[in-house]
Formats: sequence, structure tokens, C-alpha cells
Amino acid sequence: MAHRQYRNPVSIHVGAGSLSALPGLAAGRRITLVSFPEARGLGLIDRIEALLPGQVRAVIEDVRPNPDVTQLQPLYEDFWRRANEHELIVALGGGSSIDTAKTLMVGTASGRFEELLALLETGRPFTPAQHRPLIAIPTTAGTGSEVTPWATVWHAELQKKYSLHLDCTWPEAAIVDAQLMLSVPRGVTVATGLDALSHALESIWNRNANPVSDSFAVSAVRDVLACLLPLSRDLGNLALRERMAEAALKAGLAFSNTKTALAHSMSYELTLGQGLPHGIACSFTLPLVLGLAWGKRPDRDAVLQQLFGPDLGAAQQRLRDLLHALDVRTEFADYGLSAAASQALIGRAMDGPRGRNFIGVA
Amino acid sequence: MAHRQYRNPVSIHVGAGSLSALPGLAAGRRITLVSFPEARGLGLIDRIEALLPGQVRAVIEDVRPNPDVTQLQPLYEDFWRRANEHELIVALGGGSSIDTAKTLMVGTASGRFEELLALLETGRPFTPAQHRPLIAIPTTAGTGSEVTPWATVWHAELQKKYSLHLDCTWPEAAIVDAQLMLSVPRGVTVATGLDALSHALESIWNRNANPVSDSFAVSAVRDVLACLLPLSRDLGNLALRERMAEAALKAGLAFSNTKTALAHSMSYELTLGQGLPHGIACSFTLPLVLGLAWGKRPDRDAVLQQLFGPDLGAAQQRLRDLLHALDVRTEFADYGLSAAASQALIGRAMDGPRGRNFIGVA
Repeated sequence: MAHRQYRNPVSIHVGAGSLSALPGLAAGRRITLVSFPEARGLGLIDRIEALLPGQVRAVIEDVRPNPDVTQLQPLYEDFWRRANEHELIVALGGGSSIDTAKTLMVGTASGRFEELLALLETGRPFTPAQHRPLIAIPTTAGTGSEVTPWATVWHAELQKKYSLHLDCTWPEAAIVDAQLMLSVPRGVTVATGLDALSHALESIWNRNANPVSDSFAVSAVRDVLACLLPLSRDLGNLALRERMAEAALKAGLAFSNTKTALAHSMSYELTLGQGLPHGIACSFTLPLVLGLAWGKRPDRDAVLQQLFGPDLGAAQQRLRDLLHALDVRTEFADYGLSAAASQALIGRAMDGPRGRNFIGVA
Repeated sequence: MAHRQYRNPVSIHVGAGSLSALPGLAAGRRITLVSFPEARGLGLIDRIEALLPGQVRAVIEDVRPNPDVTQLQPLYEDFWRRANEHELIVALGGGSSIDTAKTLMVGTASGRFEELLALLETGRPFTPAQHRPLIAIPTTAGTGSEVTPWATVWHAELQKKYSLHLDCTWPEAAIVDAQLMLSVPRGVTVATGLDALSHALESIWNRNANPVSDSFAVSAVRDVLACLLPLSRDLGNLALRERMAEAALKAGLAFSNTKTALAHSMSYELTLGQGLPHGIACSFTLPLVLGLAWGKRPDRDAVLQQLFGPDLGAAQQRLRDLLHALDVRTEFADYGLSAAASQALIGRAMDGPRGRNFIGVA
């Protein structure tokens, strides 16, 4: 098999109660905390401030889903105007909080957000003029952003997205503590859990797959298939929350080196155009994409069949049954797309940068 | 479950032909190459020099199995006397070559080996006065040393071993190319393959196990159980060599964060005292150690039973059958130890630093 690479430098802390590792990891540094609007009501901001007395110098707590350039610009410019006040970013929240924090990591010379967007627009790697390290603490089991260097920056007005990924946007450390996930409501638990399933499967039917990413992906898919449905019916079960948190972590470790593929490539248009939540948009097509991946490469089939057995129809039905049991519809028509519109969407998605990672693209 | 950690910063390059990544990774640096006596005859030294024209400034090619202080001292002092001549170490060989290279990475202020031994004697971490990075290229599928920060330094005269492990002894990169393993003879293929099996199992029945190490270990054990016996009968089969190389890599990734446990702890005395090859000394006891681990912790049993099913007797027999089919005897008596001597050995091993990682120690 061809030459393949894997590297993930994030220091991972996992297990219920692992939030207690934060003071040691923060090591006395001055912090800007990035979180989500409900975090304060849940007592999470107070908890972080109590763990790090005197260290939290600023709190950004109005992060919205799918962070958009219009929201990021003022946050970013204020953050870098206060550059001397903080030495470390701590992100506490879902993918949107962690992705927002990643954009803050990368400081332009001018401190202006426009300069960052212009750099992202080129699609080329660069070394930022200024940088702050990040400790990421996910409060949902799905994003995997705590162990990847990727962040998605949305531009709803232009109906496009930018992908931020630099050598310096790997989090320094990730703390995956399922105790922080116990209060996540059913809808978000399901959508984020399916995002993790999509990350794992997308890393398998991927041109960049390698033995290390496969180990993580196989383990993550097995965990999601076993625990997401029972968890959706027993949201306060810590053992199930832990298993789902570990699955999302492993899925993140898998796609941290492969990136995603066709299901994610299709999802961006549906999220931008129809506001479909990311976790649903990137997972309702998994049975379809499995069919497009199957039979394309013997080594990929071997990994997929390790998970799903040798019968494609049964494998697709198993995914469809799980999605339906989680109240997620699996056909394009369910989302208002005609057969022609969905074929056109698949075509455009195959041409996208993530689509080209897909083994089913010739 | 308690708070657990995982971090592995090594940049991994894997796949038949991945040696071609070396020039890019070496990036023009001046190199000392560390290898084994047979490497030149196999054409490997010439191959590395051809890949890195003008960069290889010195070749250390007389590394022996189980590198001993008496051999290391002159190598080390000569290496650091020439400190200005090299910017990078490349290790090409089995665990002994890579471990020798790791001792060279860590330069004392005086450049004297005695100073290093005195630091190792304290058992405490330290930051060396001088340091050279390492690219590790294993030519056997077993050691895992290419993705761990550990090296074992033997002192046969004093019948002891030192363990070197510092923040700075992680290899910068690992290149795992099964094409380099095609000429490994049967005995070494079996002993190193069993070393990998032992690494994977020891990371499971280990107090430091975590979801990340478990993913690697489960995947590695499955691969070894499936491919080592067929490989021992078909040594030129590249697909089997690749699978075993990937298994050894994953086993290395697993124990890079857990360290080893009881089977390795027992092995050191047998290697020092009776000269038993490391891979045999740390694996013939695996059926016994499985029995001592079984039933000790529900979460460890779940991982072991995922691999071996619910019946301990059948699980032990499966390991014994594999070892016997590979011509490895599995009882202490086969190695000249009485029942009393073997019980005493187990007791001493449980008290050793690796033995205390074992879940079966109260």
C-alpha cells in the first residue's frame, strides 16, 4: 500500500472528572475563556473560574452555532487588541466554541480579521504573526475539534465556508470529561453523536486513510452503533455518556489526519442553504455514501466489512434503522430535495475539496 | 472511570515504500546513522546514503542486541565529541539500534556517558544539556521503539537495566516500511512479532490503559493473531509483512503511553540471567499473565473478552496454541525454572516498576 502519514500531537485527558487536570495544564497562565450562551446558567463558567482563581481575564460567552464572519470579526479584533492580557485560550463548549477559539489562536500582524480572511482565501498554509495556545474542553460528544487542527469559518452572506488549518492550530491539550455532557438535551446528543459517526466513517472511505486512523475509526463506529440509541433514551447515564465521549474522541483522532469526505462535502450546502444542523446534514446521507464507497477499493472494503459484514444492503439498512430510530430521516426528499436536485448536489460535493478525499470519486 | 492521559507526538509514515519519505523528513540535515552489523551486507547503508547524498557524516553499524553500557560508552562519548558534525540521528534497525540511538539523543554537559548513567540512576526526569533529534526506521516488526520515548540500557555486569525516558526522547518521525522487513529470518520474525503481541496485551492489563491505547491494542492483537503464524510460513509475503508491521506500530502506540506490565517485568531477569531473547522472554508467559489479569477489573475484562471471548481457559489455550505453533514453549520448566523459582520470579517481577503497572497486583 502507498505511503501514508499520521501525526497527532494533542495531549489528551479523558475520563469522568478529568476537568480536574485543567489547573495543572493551564500552569498559571492568563486565560481568555471561550464558551456558549448557556454555559453560565449551567454553572460552567463559575466552575472554570473556581478551578483557575484569578487566571480567567476575559470570557467570551456568546458563541453561536456555525460561527460566522460577522460574529467572529468583533470578537477577534477585541481579542488581539488585548493581546498582552492573555497567554492561553480555553474553549469550553461544542464545535462552535472550539472552532471560534481556533480562529482566535491565529493572530494577524494588524490584528484585523479581514487580514485573516484574506489569508484563508488563498487556501495556502502560513505562519501567523502572533499565536496563542488552546486547551479545548468539549461539552458535546461529536465535534472531535478538540483533537484536530481544523476549524470551519462560515460566511452566510456569501454562502461559503473557509477552512482554517495550520500547524499552529492543533490544541495543546484536550480534556474530554463526560460529566460535562450529562445535561446535553436529546436533540443535540443525537446530532452530535451522528456527527462523530460521520467523522469515523468518512475517515474510512477516504483516500488518506491509514492503519492508525482505521484503528480509531473502527473502534469509534462500534461504540456509536452500540451506545447512541440507548443514550438517546437514557440521557443521564454516565457510563453511556462516557462511551459516546470516547467514541467522539476516537472519531476525531481518526479524521484529524484524513479530513472528512463526501458526506461532509454535501452537508455544507444544506447547512448554509437550509439551516440544517451540521450533525444531521453530515449523517442522513451515510447509508447512501456507504453504497457509493462499497466495492471501490479492496482494503477499504475490508475495513467496512469488519464493521458491517459482507452484505451491502444489510449494512445500509443497519445505518438507516439507527438513523430512523433516532428520528432522523434518511432520504433527500425528506429535506425537500428532488431527485435531480440531490444528484446535482452530489456532483457538486464530489468536486469540493472534502469530496475529492472520497474513494468513490474516480 | 478515572482521569487518564494519552499523547504521542511522533510523525508516523507507514506503508511499503515509505522509506522514500526520508529525504523530505531529513530536510538537508547532517546525519549520524545508527544501524546493525548485517545492514551493510543487505545493502541498507548504501541505500540510505544514496537517498541522502552527502548528508550521512558518520555510520555506527556495530550495534549489538540488548545494548550494554560497556558498548554504549565509547559510542556515546565519540558521538558527543563530534557534536558539531551532526544535526540529526537516523536509526535503521531493530529495537537495539533504535534504543542505542535514543541514548545518543541525550547529551550530558561533559559529553561523558558516566554522567548520563548517574542521571538515569536517580530515576528522575531531567532536561539534557545537549540534544539531537531522531528519525527511527524499524527493520523488524516488534519493537515499537520508533513511536515511544523509552529505551532500555542494559548493564550485564551488574545484572540490571536502566530505563531512559524523557520528554526529548520521542522520535521526531518514524518510518515503518515493510519492504525493509522482507529478509528478516524466521526466528527473529517470530520473536519480534511476539514482542509486539506482548506490548499490546501488556497495555490492556495495565493500570494506565485508556480508550486511545485500548483502540490500538485491540487492533494490534487481532492483527498479530491473524498474521504472525501465516507470516512465519511465508516470510517473503509483503502483504503479511505489512500487516505485521502495522500491528507492531499500533502495539507501540498503545504501550507508548501505558508502559509495559508483568510479562515484561518477568522477562528482564530471564534475558539478563539466561540470555533468553527479549521477544521470547516477554511472551512465553502471556497465557499465564492473562490468567492473572482475568477477573481483576470489569473494564479490562471487557476489552480482553472483546478479543478472546468469555472463557478464560479457551483464551489461554488460544495463546498457548499460537506460541506452540511458532515453536515457543510456554512453561517455566521448559526454561529450566522450578515451580518455586518461577513463583519467586513472579513475586520479584510484581515488585518491579513495570510489574506495578499490572492490574493483577493488589
